[in-house]
Amino acid sequence: MNLLEEKVFDLVIVGSGVAGLSAAIYAGRYLMKVLVAEGVFGGETAVAGTIWNYPGAPSTDGFDLMQTMKTQAKDVGTTFISGKATKVTNDNNCYTIFIGEKEYYAKTILFAQGSERRRLGLPNEKELTNKGIHFCVTCDGPLYGGKTVAMVGGGDASVKGVNLLLQYASKIYLIVRGTQMRAEPINVAEMQKHGQGKVEILFETEVKEIIGTDKLEKIILSKEHNGSKELPLNGLFVEIGATPDVILARSVGVTLDNLGYIAVDNNMQTNVPGIYAAGDAVNHFGSFKQSITAAALGAVAATSAYNYHKAYGNLCEIHWKPSGVISPT
Amino acid sequence: MNLLEEKVFDLVIVGSGVAGLSAAIYAGRYLMKVLVAEGVFGGETAVAGTIWNYPGAPSTDGFDLMQTMKTQAKDVGTTFISGKATKVTNDNNCYTIFIGEKEYYAKTILFAQGSERRRLGLPNEKELTNKGIHFCVTCDGPLYGGKTVAMVGGGDASVKGVNLLLQYASKIYLIVRGTQMRAEPINVAEMQKHGQGKVEILFETEVKEIIGTDKLEKIILSKEHNGSKELPLNGLFVEIGATPDVILARSVGVTLDNLGYIAVDNNMQTNVPGIYAAGDAVNHFGSFKQSITAAALGAVAATSAYNYHKAYGNLCEIHWKPSGVISPT
Repeated sequence: MNLLEEKVFDLVIVGSGVAGLSAAIYAGRYLMKVLVAEGVFGGETAVAGTIWNYPGAPSTDGFDLMQTMKTQAKDVGTTFISGKATKVTNDNNCYTIFIGEKEYYAKTILFAQGSERRRLGLPNEKELTNKGIHFCVTCDGPLYGGKTVAMVGGGDASVKGVNLLLQYASKIYLIVRGTQMRAEPINVAEMQKHGQGKVEILFETEVKEIIGTDKLEKIILSKEHNGSKELPLNGLFVEIGATPDVILARSVGVTLDNLGYIAVDNNMQTNVPGIYAAGDAVNHFGSFKQSITAAALGAVAATSAYNYHKAYGNLCEIHWKPSGVISPT
Repeated sequence: MNLLEEKVFDLVIVGSGVAGLSAAIYAGRYLMKVLVAEGVFGGETAVAGTIWNYPGAPSTDGFDLMQTMKTQAKDVGTTFISGKATKVTNDNNCYTIFIGEKEYYAKTILFAQGSERRRLGLPNEKELTNKGIHFCVTCDGPLYGGKTVAMVGGGDASVKGVNLLLQYASKIYLIVRGTQMRAEPINVAEMQKHGQGKVEILFETEVKEIIGTDKLEKIILSKEHNGSKELPLNGLFVEIGATPDVILARSVGVTLDNLGYIAVDNNMQTNVPGIYAAGDAVNHFGSFKQSITAAALGAVAATSAYNYHKAYGNLCEIHWKPSGVISPT
């Protein structure tokens, strides 16, 4: 094996959330040579706090669940790189992928980068992120013991976030744009039960301004609450959804569906030969995007990549020989 | 609540394999009133021996994994009945389901009975089952310490079965109908590594006769091995696939796909309103039928059943009132 050959992989997985690591576990058992470009380790599940509904892993911390999957993937020989994949080029359906400063060669690729959390898009938001503004209750909730905070969002994630914040904060405003919440009833029931006197829900309300210099001081609401549009806060949490990370996939010719997710068939195959996608970056089960569905889709994608690799992987080896990527013997 | 009302459920799940229990976990968290008709507890996973590739549950015994899921389902309020569902009737898309001797009322139903193991279809096979003939290595392999056994089948399950049998038996014949095996390379590699001198593979060979009175004595092969068609055996294991269990679903008007599986859309919805299917009884991911995919499909089905129940469940309550199933108040 020459130096370049060490950089050749049967499957390069972009992302280390549930979909990516599930795929690595399966591909490893298929004896594929697998590289995972981790990006932010563990994806959404790692920052989800306690996971109650992953069948087979009762009330597990999401980060621990992801560590378990990483260990499973390592046990079947997966190589991990902590960098972020930044560029992919397609040469005859044999791929070069750039991770951090280095380049690697891939016979197949799985895009499993999930999605990125949506921001409010207001001035000061970026400057005050982690200085009072946060996008992860699990990570930053404990900073607000006895403090006053607000949560922006009307979906299940925001209600779950409030339920977690109840362990720390003394006062929580839930700021909901619409006239009602779209959350699991069990989570709403929990919020009502434990939030008595501590949680106040502001329906049909938006955040118009973020005020603070070195740290968040207050926000300006779109309508008055208790006679004022000003709401002094120690912390502001934002849970208003996510956008699928499709830039790298698009750059190599992968098409999207009409909602902006990576378009795949039931085998998680994209329109580009040898390229697959799974997890929150695809919309296979619609808005139902869970750790357990990501795990299944990752396993399906790995199986498809394996079948493709068995049939066509040697063509890339032949293709790479003149350039010295593969030894000429 | 009257006596009949105790028998009314928002969702009745037929089957307690991964798909059924995953659905129960999700439906319970949606605060649905859920009944599981267990049938044979734990489905295929419970008898699969050690599960290596379930993401998040490293090298777990399948039975233990299913017990964990059952505990998770019970923790969210699921009722379990050990009987087998034998009959379903549809009255205005409100369902009556018979489990053992008793009847229950269901607003929605999930068929998650998986599939039934295929048999050889030979005389004596039924009579000698569990008297030398077996369909579950995990369950019955340990009976054959130091003995001579055969495994019938050329797929992954048969090779995994041989690998497990290597812990017990001193000699194993693997009887493969075709010219090669269709198994995961890692499992074949394991068999080659540990089976040296103990495993003999008989390609292009079938079992023609089973001979024995009170217990299995020998089998007759379709072609000679070492100069004889007779093969004396202590045990014969059969791993030749499975047929989806669709009888109950068909009886209530559910249509099948062209391969004989229950036809569902991406939400696991059948053609009959309020009736869903998931797991090995559906062919959503083709021949790729794993515990992790069954778990995802069960979760999807529960979510669809919940959405349907929220929209239409009260119609069944109105429908049932005149018959006294629901209190008239």
